[in-house]
Amino acid sequence: MSSSDIFIGETIGTAILILLGGGVCAAVTLKASKARNAGWLAITFGWGFAVLTAVYISGPLSGAHLNPAVTVALAIKNSDWSNVPVYLAGQLLGAMIGAALVWVAYYGQFHAHLTDKEIVGGPGAQDTAAKAVEAQETGAGPVLGIFSTGPEIRNVAQNLATEIIGTVVLILAVLTQGLNDKGNGLGVLGGLVTALVVVSIGLSLGGPTGYAINPARDLGPRIVHALLPLPNKGGSDWSYAWIPVVGPLIGAAIAAGIYNVAFA
Amino acid sequence: MSSSDIFIGETIGTAILILLGGGVCAAVTLKASKARNAGWLAITFGWGFAVLTAVYISGPLSGAHLNPAVTVALAIKNSDWSNVPVYLAGQLLGAMIGAALVWVAYYGQFHAHLTDKEIVGGPGAQDTAAKAVEAQETGAGPVLGIFSTGPEIRNVAQNLATEIIGTVVLILAVLTQGLNDKGNGLGVLGGLVTALVVVSIGLSLGGPTGYAINPARDLGPRIVHALLPLPNKGGSDWSYAWIPVVGPLIGAAIAAGIYNVAFA
Amino acid sequence: MSSSDIFIGETIGTAILILLGGGVCAAVTLKASKARNAGWLAITFGWGFAVLTAVYISGPLSGAHLNPAVTVALAIKNSDWSNVPVYLAGQLLGAMIGAALVWVAYYGQFHAHLTDKEIVGGPGAQDTAAKAVEAQETGAGPVLGIFSTGPEIRNVAQNLATEIIGTVVLILAVLTQGLNDKGNGLGVLGGLVTALVVVSIGLSLGGPTGYAINPARDLGPRIVHALLPLPNKGGSDWSYAWIPVVGPLIGAAIAAGIYNVAFA
Amino acid sequence: MSSSDIFIGETIGTAILILLGGGVCAAVTLKASKARNAGWLAITFGWGFAVLTAVYISGPLSGAHLNPAVTVALAIKNSDWSNVPVYLAGQLLGAMIGAALVWVAYYGQFHAHLTDKEIVGGPGAQDTAAKAVEAQETGAGPVLGIFSTGPEIRNVAQNLATEIIGTVVLILAVLTQGLNDKGNGLGVLGGLVTALVVVSIGLSLGGPTGYAINPARDLGPRIVHALLPLPNKGGSDWSYAWIPVVGPLIGAAIAAGIYNVAFA
Repeated sequence: MSSSDIFIGETIGTAILILLGGGVCAAVTLKASKARNAGWLAITFGWGFAVLTAVYISGPLSGAHLNPAVTVALAIKNSDWSNVPVYLAGQLLGAMIGAALVWVAYYGQFHAHLTDKEIVGGPGAQDTAAKAVEAQETGAGPVLGIFSTGPEIRNVAQNLATEIIGTVVLILAVLTQGLNDKGNGLGVLGGLVTALVVVSIGLSLGGPTGYAINPARDLGPRIVHALLPLPNKGGSDWSYAWIPVVGPLIGAAIAAGIYNVAFA
Repeated sequence: MSSSDIFIGETIGTAILILLGGGVCAAVTLKASKARNAGWLAITFGWGFAVLTAVYISGPLSGAHLNPAVTVALAIKNSDWSNVPVYLAGQLLGAMIGAALVWVAYYGQFHAHLTDKEIVGGPGAQDTAAKAVEAQETGAGPVLGIFSTGPEIRNVAQNLATEIIGTVVLILAVLTQGLNDKGNGLGVLGGLVTALVVVSIGLSLGGPTGYAINPARDLGPRIVHALLPLPNKGGSDWSYAWIPVVGPLIGAAIAAGIYNVAFA
Repeated sequence: MSSSDIFIGETIGTAILILLGGGVCAAVTLKASKARNAGWLAITFGWGFAVLTAVYISGPLSGAHLNPAVTVALAIKNSDWSNVPVYLAGQLLGAMIGAALVWVAYYGQFHAHLTDKEIVGGPGAQDTAAKAVEAQETGAGPVLGIFSTGPEIRNVAQNLATEIIGTVVLILAVLTQGLNDKGNGLGVLGGLVTALVVVSIGLSLGGPTGYAINPARDLGPRIVHALLPLPNKGGSDWSYAWIPVVGPLIGAAIAAGIYNVAFA
Repeated sequence: MSSSDIFIGETIGTAILILLGGGVCAAVTLKASKARNAGWLAITFGWGFAVLTAVYISGPLSGAHLNPAVTVALAIKNSDWSNVPVYLAGQLLGAMIGAALVWVAYYGQFHAHLTDKEIVGGPGAQDTAAKAVEAQETGAGPVLGIFSTGPEIRNVAQNLATEIIGTVVLILAVLTQGLNDKGNGLGVLGGLVTALVVVSIGLSLGGPTGYAINPARDLGPRIVHALLPLPNKGGSDWSYAWIPVVGPLIGAAIAAGIYNVAFA
């Protein structure tokens, strides 16, 4: 694969991943969306099939890492860091483009939601108002969750641990795919398996922090949240931003270590 | 493939697509349906598996485009427009047959729903009454959503943009299938992947406009809605009808352009 | 395949189909079940994955028809009726065994449900009481739906039409599987595709009648319902029983005709 | 496969199975989890995709039994018990590690839940309070369900029967996989089929007892529940603990017998 194929593939693939992943969060969260309150199952299947779609589209160009944790784990496993910067650059740029496209696709919904008095803090919206107060205290605005992850309970040790554990599972599934693939027919259906692994991690380990398990998935959209001209958007919760970057990278290193010791 | 195989395949396939896709909307919407209020996840999986079913049945005859956006994108990619009119004719006819079959399968439910005083505007049905008022203002009757799409917020630019974005994702997934297929075992399981991509687009990008992403899927059933002898059916919202036709065609052209520049 | 393999395979396979299919209806319906009120999506996925499980277990023995409509359609397509009686006998016996196993697995739940005053007709259970009254009028007891299908609106023409339409879709998907399979890798994954087609039919066409689309699936458990010593079980609604037998058989004949004209 | 590969594979695989399976129960149950009350469909898909993830990761090392019932059934079928102790040891150790990891990932959620006055028995929590009373009477604490299974209605004969029936279905699906696999392309996608069979068993047969269908899945986490320093955790319900061990083993023997008589 050429560097330009890698860069273009990762940019397109990560843009589609975040467009669809952020999209399902917008769909379930925002006022005047047909999918409003569709629930956690919709969110987890939405992110899983976002992975599926992005992997199949970008796979032929770049191999579809779409996640710095995948890139770093493969670099450790293969002791080859030559293409890492190109992968990371494409992933961060793609994540930012994807987040911007969510804003385009849900433009009217964002505006209706953020200017709705009941939602932003009016008297009738108890639950939402409580969330909004909590959001202001933590610096996170009411729609930040469409862009980036945040913990239900702020605790650096637990939040890091949860992101590390989720990422170890993801990366082990990615690294062992090559073993499953040897002459026995998994072929490109590995993308489907990976997608369902992501649904699994969401359902099972997403409860505490919202399962970033991908530094680009969290950091790129957070930057876009900070830049977009959204009314009443609140802060971008930068104090939390390092955890969904560092946790997945630690998880990637641990998973690569387990792989090299137990599976290689 | 002969022209008659293409025409028959696209007619049968698109009829099944709309029978099952419109069917799930009827199932979730209408009074006296066991699936009433089954939610957005049911609708998105219902449409996705409608694609799966239609693709596997019509694939051997016509290649299963079932969508003018797919036909146009493949024509641009391959610079071959010779069969385009046959595909489009089969798709539009099939979509109309499928919509009529939804009416047959849910005949009693349509009648019960449309003659129920509470649903059509009685005092006890606040939500539905509000929707009905909104429907009358916009010209859309209370069951039009079983046939055709409509936006939650009317905004030509955003509605077009959302349909374009969703279609670009769909068409990129269709066009890259050939690349994933080369000697590595995707084979006919491409139909399953396409179906899950459609679930993904529904979950993630369906919130604002109901994701037509297919001109025949929207136009054919809208014509049938206008023709059927349904009581209290309301208007067919023709002022919106061009957006789910033009948006997907623009999306198809953009996706074919991206494919030819980045992937070919 | 030998006659005994066919008979044993169809008996085991249809028993598993009805154990799991009836099981999900029991799980969602009965008091003191962890899955109570899990909703229509649970029922449709439950029946679909019941097909998947039964097909993979019985496929190597009998080819996994598990449905007289499939057996009849294949006999028409292949003009070979020699094994039809063996298939039908195994299917009906298997369906009865499966329904009895649902009763064993949910023994305490059936008793708790049927002897609960509120459920059977006490003052606090408005919805259920209304349903029970309706059930008595139609001759259908409150748990008959765990065994057999019944229409939301009784209308012979529509009920027949809905079962015919659903079965045509199922049988077309089964018959075209051979075309999809030719040298391109669908292989035994056809069982997965068929399962998702059944989910699709359930989501999209199950609303009016509960989608029997299989005479054995409805008749076998209805006989068991009539025989089991369940308290307050109500009638077995024999006046409806012919529709889910005749409708699917008509659908099978229509689908085989379409196949022989358009696909063969 | 070497003994050490088997032991390491089963330990890692069962740890991931229980981490994800127990994780989804924690996600849906605990206060301050984003997935709280996501419902039975989330639990059954969560356990099914937990199987998928664990099978793909550990398959290349140990063949991914992850369940003493699978190990025993294969030993009966193949008349080869040589590796059974290594498999069982890895499975039990892995299940305990997985349960401990659930506690780490949901650390703050466990504490918030178990120290919440309303949840543990305060006046405002009627449903939960009733459950807590029931839990105390039976010896099961309010979060035991995250670790181990328990019946809705205590009845040794029925509870055993339900676990036996569910396990027979699972083991028949596992044993017939080899027949489906012979030269026709199921290949490693057997892991996906097994995962969906587990979803099926959960949806259809999970209602009465919570479908252990795996002795290690129930016993390992129950030991960890007894050991963990959780406040107000209640008893570990040891009087029930033998049923999800003995039932699945009986089911494994029955399924292996059916296989050897009907399929071999």
